[in-house]
Amino acid sequence: MALTFMVPGLDEATSEKAIGILQSRLSQEQETALVLKHVHWNLTGPNFIAVHEMIDPQVDVVLAQADETAERIATLGGSPDGRADAITRVRTWSKFLLEGRAGTEEYLKALDAYYSEFIKADRTAIAELDELDVISSNIVQDHVQELEKFQWFMRSHLV
Amino acid sequence: MALTFMVPGLDEATSEKAIGILQSRLSQEQETALVLKHVHWNLTGPNFIAVHEMIDPQVDVVLAQADETAERIATLGGSPDGRADAITRVRTWSKFLLEGRAGTEEYLKALDAYYSEFIKADRTAIAELDELDVISSNIVQDHVQELEKFQWFMRSHLV
Amino acid sequence: MALTFMVPGLDEATSEKAIGILQSRLSQEQETALVLKHVHWNLTGPNFIAVHEMIDPQVDVVLAQADETAERIATLGGSPDGRADAITRVRTWSKFLLEGRAGTEEYLKALDAYYSEFIKADRTAIAELDELDVISSNIVQDHVQELEKFQWFMRSHLV
Amino acid sequence: MALTFMVPGLDEATSEKAIGILQSRLSQEQETALVLKHVHWNLTGPNFIAVHEMIDPQVDVVLAQADETAERIATLGGSPDGRADAITRVRTWSKFLLEGRAGTEEYLKALDAYYSEFIKADRTAIAELDELDVISSNIVQDHVQELEKFQWFMRSHLV
Amino acid sequence: MALTFMVPGLDEATSEKAIGILQSRLSQEQETALVLKHVHWNLTGPNFIAVHEMIDPQVDVVLAQADETAERIATLGGSPDGRADAITRVRTWSKFLLEGRAGTEEYLKALDAYYSEFIKADRTAIAELDELDVISSNIVQDHVQELEKFQWFMRSHLV
Amino acid sequence: MALTFMVPGLDEATSEKAIGILQSRLSQEQETALVLKHVHWNLTGPNFIAVHEMIDPQVDVVLAQADETAERIATLGGSPDGRADAITRVRTWSKFLLEGRAGTEEYLKALDAYYSEFIKADRTAIAELDELDVISSNIVQDHVQELEKFQWFMRSHLV
Amino acid sequence: MALTFMVPGLDEATSEKAIGILQSRLSQEQETALVLKHVHWNLTGPNFIAVHEMIDPQVDVVLAQADETAERIATLGGSPDGRADAITRVRTWSKFLLEGRAGTEEYLKALDAYYSEFIKADRTAIAELDELDVISSNIVQDHVQELEKFQWFMRSHLV
Amino acid sequence: MALTFMVPGLDEATSEKAIGILQSRLSQEQETALVLKHVHWNLTGPNFIAVHEMIDPQVDVVLAQADETAERIATLGGSPDGRADAITRVRTWSKFLLEGRAGTEEYLKALDAYYSEFIKADRTAIAELDELDVISSNIVQDHVQELEKFQWFMRSHLV
Amino acid sequence: MALTFMVPGLDEATSEKAIGILQSRLSQEQETALVLKHVHWNLTGPNFIAVHEMIDPQVDVVLAQADETAERIATLGGSPDGRADAITRVRTWSKFLLEGRAGTEEYLKALDAYYSEFIKADRTAIAELDELDVISSNIVQDHVQELEKFQWFMRSHLV
Amino acid sequence: MALTFMVPGLDEATSEKAIGILQSRLSQEQETALVLKHVHWNLTGPNFIAVHEMIDPQVDVVLAQADETAERIATLGGSPDGRADAITRVRTWSKFLLEGRAGTEEYLKALDAYYSEFIKADRTAIAELDELDVISSNIVQDHVQELEKFQWFMRSHLV
Amino acid sequence: MALTFMVPGLDEATSEKAIGILQSRLSQEQETALVLKHVHWNLTGPNFIAVHEMIDPQVDVVLAQADETAERIATLGGSPDGRADAITRVRTWSKFLLEGRAGTEEYLKALDAYYSEFIKADRTAIAELDELDVISSNIVQDHVQELEKFQWFMRSHLV
Amino acid sequence: MALTFMVPGLDEATSEKAIGILQSRLSQEQETALVLKHVHWNLTGPNFIAVHEMIDPQVDVVLAQADETAERIATLGGSPDGRADAITRVRTWSKFLLEGRAGTEEYLKALDAYYSEFIKADRTAIAELDELDVISSNIVQDHVQELEKFQWFMRSHLV
Repeated sequence: MALTFMVPGLDEATSEKAIGILQSRLSQEQETALVLKHVHWNLTGPNFIAVHEMIDPQVDVVLAQADETAERIATLGGSPDGRADAITRVRTWSKFLLEGRAGTEEYLKALDAYYSEFIKADRTAIAELDELDVISSNIVQDHVQELEKFQWFMRSHLV
Repeated sequence: MALTFMVPGLDEATSEKAIGILQSRLSQEQETALVLKHVHWNLTGPNFIAVHEMIDPQVDVVLAQADETAERIATLGGSPDGRADAITRVRTWSKFLLEGRAGTEEYLKALDAYYSEFIKADRTAIAELDELDVISSNIVQDHVQELEKFQWFMRSHLV
Repeated sequence: MALTFMVPGLDEATSEKAIGILQSRLSQEQETALVLKHVHWNLTGPNFIAVHEMIDPQVDVVLAQADETAERIATLGGSPDGRADAITRVRTWSKFLLEGRAGTEEYLKALDAYYSEFIKADRTAIAELDELDVISSNIVQDHVQELEKFQWFMRSHLV
Repeated sequence: MALTFMVPGLDEATSEKAIGILQSRLSQEQETALVLKHVHWNLTGPNFIAVHEMIDPQVDVVLAQADETAERIATLGGSPDGRADAITRVRTWSKFLLEGRAGTEEYLKALDAYYSEFIKADRTAIAELDELDVISSNIVQDHVQELEKFQWFMRSHLV
Repeated sequence: MALTFMVPGLDEATSEKAIGILQSRLSQEQETALVLKHVHWNLTGPNFIAVHEMIDPQVDVVLAQADETAERIATLGGSPDGRADAITRVRTWSKFLLEGRAGTEEYLKALDAYYSEFIKADRTAIAELDELDVISSNIVQDHVQELEKFQWFMRSHLV
Repeated sequence: MALTFMVPGLDEATSEKAIGILQSRLSQEQETALVLKHVHWNLTGPNFIAVHEMIDPQVDVVLAQADETAERIATLGGSPDGRADAITRVRTWSKFLLEGRAGTEEYLKALDAYYSEFIKADRTAIAELDELDVISSNIVQDHVQELEKFQWFMRSHLV
Repeated sequence: MALTFMVPGLDEATSEKAIGILQSRLSQEQETALVLKHVHWNLTGPNFIAVHEMIDPQVDVVLAQADETAERIATLGGSPDGRADAITRVRTWSKFLLEGRAGTEEYLKALDAYYSEFIKADRTAIAELDELDVISSNIVQDHVQELEKFQWFMRSHLV
Repeated sequence: MALTFMVPGLDEATSEKAIGILQSRLSQEQETALVLKHVHWNLTGPNFIAVHEMIDPQVDVVLAQADETAERIATLGGSPDGRADAITRVRTWSKFLLEGRAGTEEYLKALDAYYSEFIKADRTAIAELDELDVISSNIVQDHVQELEKFQWFMRSHLV
Repeated sequence: MALTFMVPGLDEATSEKAIGILQSRLSQEQETALVLKHVHWNLTGPNFIAVHEMIDPQVDVVLAQADETAERIATLGGSPDGRADAITRVRTWSKFLLEGRAGTEEYLKALDAYYSEFIKADRTAIAELDELDVISSNIVQDHVQELEKFQWFMRSHLV
Repeated sequence: MALTFMVPGLDEATSEKAIGILQSRLSQEQETALVLKHVHWNLTGPNFIAVHEMIDPQVDVVLAQADETAERIATLGGSPDGRADAITRVRTWSKFLLEGRAGTEEYLKALDAYYSEFIKADRTAIAELDELDVISSNIVQDHVQELEKFQWFMRSHLV
Repeated sequence: MALTFMVPGLDEATSEKAIGILQSRLSQEQETALVLKHVHWNLTGPNFIAVHEMIDPQVDVVLAQADETAERIATLGGSPDGRADAITRVRTWSKFLLEGRAGTEEYLKALDAYYSEFIKADRTAIAELDELDVISSNIVQDHVQELEKFQWFMRSHLV
Repeated sequence: MALTFMVPGLDEATSEKAIGILQSRLSQEQETALVLKHVHWNLTGPNFIAVHEMIDPQVDVVLAQADETAERIATLGGSPDGRADAITRVRTWSKFLLEGRAGTEEYLKALDAYYSEFIKADRTAIAELDELDVISSNIVQDHVQELEKFQWFMRSHLV
């Protein structure tokens, strides 16, 4: 699909490549918001309230990331797909499989593994975007910094 | 799956029925948040900024509804499934099909149709929950009141 | 006048009945805001400042009620009439007759009597709306709860 | 009716003339709040949300004007009449006749015409009050400045 | 004791029955605020700070419930008894017996048991109030929704 | 004393006359803040708390007036005297004589009389400043508007 | 019961004496919060709203005092008893006997008498704590300062 | 250029004259915001931080003045020119010539001289607008009051 | 004059002595607020804005001190005299003599000297109140702590 | 002109080159604030209020950019020129030519074209600054990200 | 070193002794802020997030204590040494030796031991300052009250 | 010491090198907070208050930098050392030697020299981190931008 317009100074081919990378990041950011809430509701055990409350600010963080990513796609002349089916269609990473009531540690382990894939994918995207559009790369750099800090929180529980 | 516990005064069979109804509402509330953002990013035309900004508060509304619904499921002793795959698995209503850049009117029409099914499903849930658990019914009543008001906003654009 | 649209799940006849009931409530809510300000400006006596200040938050309450009622009419597909002439045309309750400077007690007695009619009319509306539209009934239930509490304030002065 | 008291430095005849002028302004300010809400609820069309939201701050403006005008009447020793019937009794300007759902442009045209009469009446009041009481004149000057700015908003839509 | 006045539309016998039900709820809401603080101060163990902080917002919740219940009694023409002796006199539920320093789990178990009786009593009150006064019933419905959610918090620690 | 500088467009003689008028207003504004606090602390009777609280915002009002008046004197090139001795030296109006515990009504009567002289002096200053400097006149006009409204509050208690 | 730990620098005997004194203060602070609300709900008469509103901030004050007192007990190694039964068990001062609707003056008189005993008991506690633990004494000193100021409010109504 | 519309009660010739006067004020207000920032960035010396911070609120003041002036032009039916070239084209006052790093005193002297011309021009505009449109005159009166106060700040540094 | 009432636990003679000491502190606190404003308006020189702004928070501090002192007098059963004439009558310390425009250093030196007497008088009052009423002593201790800190600010300019 | 100082680690030649690039960016950022306000005041048509309000936050954005750019120039040892004449002198991009009342679409098209040049110039500056000073480059990167997003807003109206 | 000045009423020898005591408290307060952050960053285990978040408000507390202590030293005419080397030079208490990742319990035990020495030193300082300067003693009393409460938090985890 | 874990995509050797660089930055950021406070408390002279207040926001800035740096070390799998002894152990830059009361200029000169070393060390760290971990480099880039701006503030005083 031909782009409607391009950012001044970027050509169409470059823009389309960046858009493709960002769409994948958008879907994972949106899924992470869903997964975090899923964990928030289902975890149990003596640390319930502390971990339950630790998760909500991170939900806000990834929702804001998704908004920024999607609006960058639109700014580049593309059309972000923000629907649930885009998540399952675009997904190249492992599904989050844990469900039902389970202990805090079990859920944090599963989430830690999910984040490891997420962060690796973001770092790969940064390397690719560096060649295409510095602003898009900056955006994902800021995102991964936040994800890595939250992963440290999780790992500190599991050490 | 046997419930972990029940709300004092509710039996297990009643609780399980209510949980089933609420899981469907949860998935649609979560999908609506995704759909609204999808529209927010892709609509165009001379009313862009006004409609773009009208949508964000409604996203907050349905995210809060999903949180309240999921926590009610957990309160009833159930385990809410908040993942993207639950949305596509549970979905008994029509997918939101419009994608790519399109005019404000086109997107609002599609969203209006989506809300008509959403509201009908909520009203059916209220009728069923009235027989099971008045608190769960109250929760969905408050939700549908907000949805109907937002639908009036959309319809006022389309009249 | 045929309705422009209906809330999903409500038919036209039901909607029109509910709209008629709500228009009456809207006009009385609007009039009450005017009456409360009228009292706020004209009362005198050693309790002036305390009662003068007690009234303003209630003005905000009934203005918000009127807004909610009118938007419910619009949501149901109707067209609310919010003009001064609608108040005098729709009025089936007693006019507020006291005017000019008068003591706090005299004004609170007149207002107490006005509220008694207002509350009765709201309770009648609730009974009728229960048969038509649970959401509209909920709205008026919330309104009358606020009015009854304020009437207790007034009556506590007059005991 | 003899005044209860006068502002130090103003005589009774002067005060009564100023009170008469201000009562007319009060009633129109109160009616304008009602009319603006009426428009807010009934307008439709592709600019619905933007114009709907533009009106609410102006409602707050004219409600505050009415409060200031009424309290000036009371300060001058008079007794403001703030009831709905005072509006219809005192009204020397044209009724607002448009009702039911209608397009944004149609409602803004009707409102623009209503404001033209309102502003002229305020400017006449200023000229008369200049001879009676500079403070009362200042109050109406501040009011008309706000009204004229809002009329520019409306006219900018209609140009 | 004859009532001072009644809510318009309610007769004296109905009002007195509702008042009796609400007085019991008031006393338990007041006692719960005391019990929650008692727990807040005495619990110990590795989850101390998290559970200590989880309790304070719930104290605010039940204090606000008591205020709303007592003011409803007064609105119905009754006279709420809010003293410590009323709690011990009216109490038909089990005393909270745990005291002194004890672990988080021990205190949460005792509190969970206390809440089970509290919630059952509220649900019984709702059933009775439904026959007497819809507004009073609505008030207790809102209260029990909050209590049930907080009980889920506690149970999530104990699973 | 020769002025340090003048506002552009005003000559020295005009500035000095305006400064003289404003110094008197400054001293009375400062004294009024002291008198209002004196009343705030000493009044008694069944309306104590309401009137006690009514006074504090007016203290803030007259302190802000004094600040504005003094800075206008400085802007005009003069030097405001803000000390206690300036108040007693400049005072051409009646001292506030009531002291010790006394009833609300007694204190409000004394304060009402004090305000009558204050307002007359401000209105005289406005007439004189109109011939000298429109900005200084505007400042005092805004001040007297606030004083007259507060006097209405007091008189409403005494009617 | 042997203390779990002591504040560094205090021995066990000293700590236990201080704890005993503070438990009595805790119970009276908790009861005062209940009594103030009891008055808040039941008083009537022409000063209703002003006195009704004067009481709520004082409720917040004594609740905060109780929290500080209980946490000081815990800091000293003791275990505060915060239950309703502790109030009636520990009580060495007169019960608050007034109940049912009564005039503002009647309730303020009863409350004034209750505060006289409360303040005396606090001042006795200060004298005893001065010999035991300066920090505990400071805490009660701050509390009695607030109580004495509120008593002045009440007495100003009754003079 | 014929005006699009006029304020009710003002004729076209009057409006055009007022617009011409206001356009000059707009351009100078806009330039002043630029000049103040220029000074803010370039001044040096031992009073750097205090004067640097004193300037920013004044920038906000003149930007708000420019907004109010431009919107008054539009309200009168005119079309404000807010571009940089309008400033240099309309300028009838002396350019601000000081540039590069210079001491606080040197910059404040240059700014004081610039303000003297600014204030004189505003006072001339007030005299002219008094004959044309009282509201426009009021606007400029409020502006010059703020400018004169800020000039006093500067002069207090230079005395 | 016999006291209206006494704080529970204090006798009349003690209360009267404390009241006498506090009245002197009240008058000096009130005068200090006037003196600080006087300085605020009249100082000049290259540090104008920094010192001008440093003074305003201290004005708020001493006004709050005066309020607390006066309300303590009333709490003790006395009647505070808050008028300008009380300041000049009660004054046992040196008048503040500097007036007219003068440099920052000159004004700070005069203010530093004024504060030295103020602080010494407060410390003397503390020593006397320690024998009479610990709460009154605490109040003045808190006041002098604030004054000494502000004096350090002034002295840091003068070193 | 020799620089007053350099950032530690940067030499003078490098600093001067960076300063030259940043001065051009400063002038365009300042002009953009003026142009955006010019559009804000002059646009008309059915989308007036929505687009009018969309522009103001962007004005704040570019004013903050100009402040950050100018302070970076000063930090590098240079002297920013922030006057209107610097804008017209430095300008290497096309003037904004549209003036007078014109429709929303017409103004957004002109603004879109202006932004295209602005963004290209910023991207060129980034490329040059990358070789000179990474911090200065980061600053302009953050600026252009904001500009590109706002251009997407405009383009969404024009699609 | 001779003091620059003394607080009015304190002699030089007294002041110097108080300064010496306060310098030691300053250094320990500053070290505690560093130690708390050290713990905040390095602790691990299932209670990570709850304890991690519990520490930050205490960091703010001890930083504010250090600021108050240092400014008291300056007020007394001394010169506080706030550098890292002062901490290691002045330290008479045990170093905090635990480092690297370690469990919550291990870190809380080490911190509890550190606080025991800190509190003892503060209590010794209070006893000494009571003989020198009541205001300085009050400051340390307020500090130790906060430290003791936080120590209770830690001990509640370890019981 | 082997790392506990690594950021996904970074190997252990790289992580350890980055950790070493960041530990040095952490210690200097912590020391700078101490040094800034030391200056804040000890400087004197006619610009005291302005410079005293300029420093506090910068303290907050460097404390936040230290927090971010330490948490990055932990995120990379390392263990930050935040104690006072780490500062003196790690220090490779010049101690801050100025102490005791000294003039503003003297302190700003010493601080300016300290910042020059600080900034150079940060810029060296950026160059090294660019080869190891882009996120860590971004963090230090943001820090140095803030430091360089604050150094410009200081230098503007000294020019």
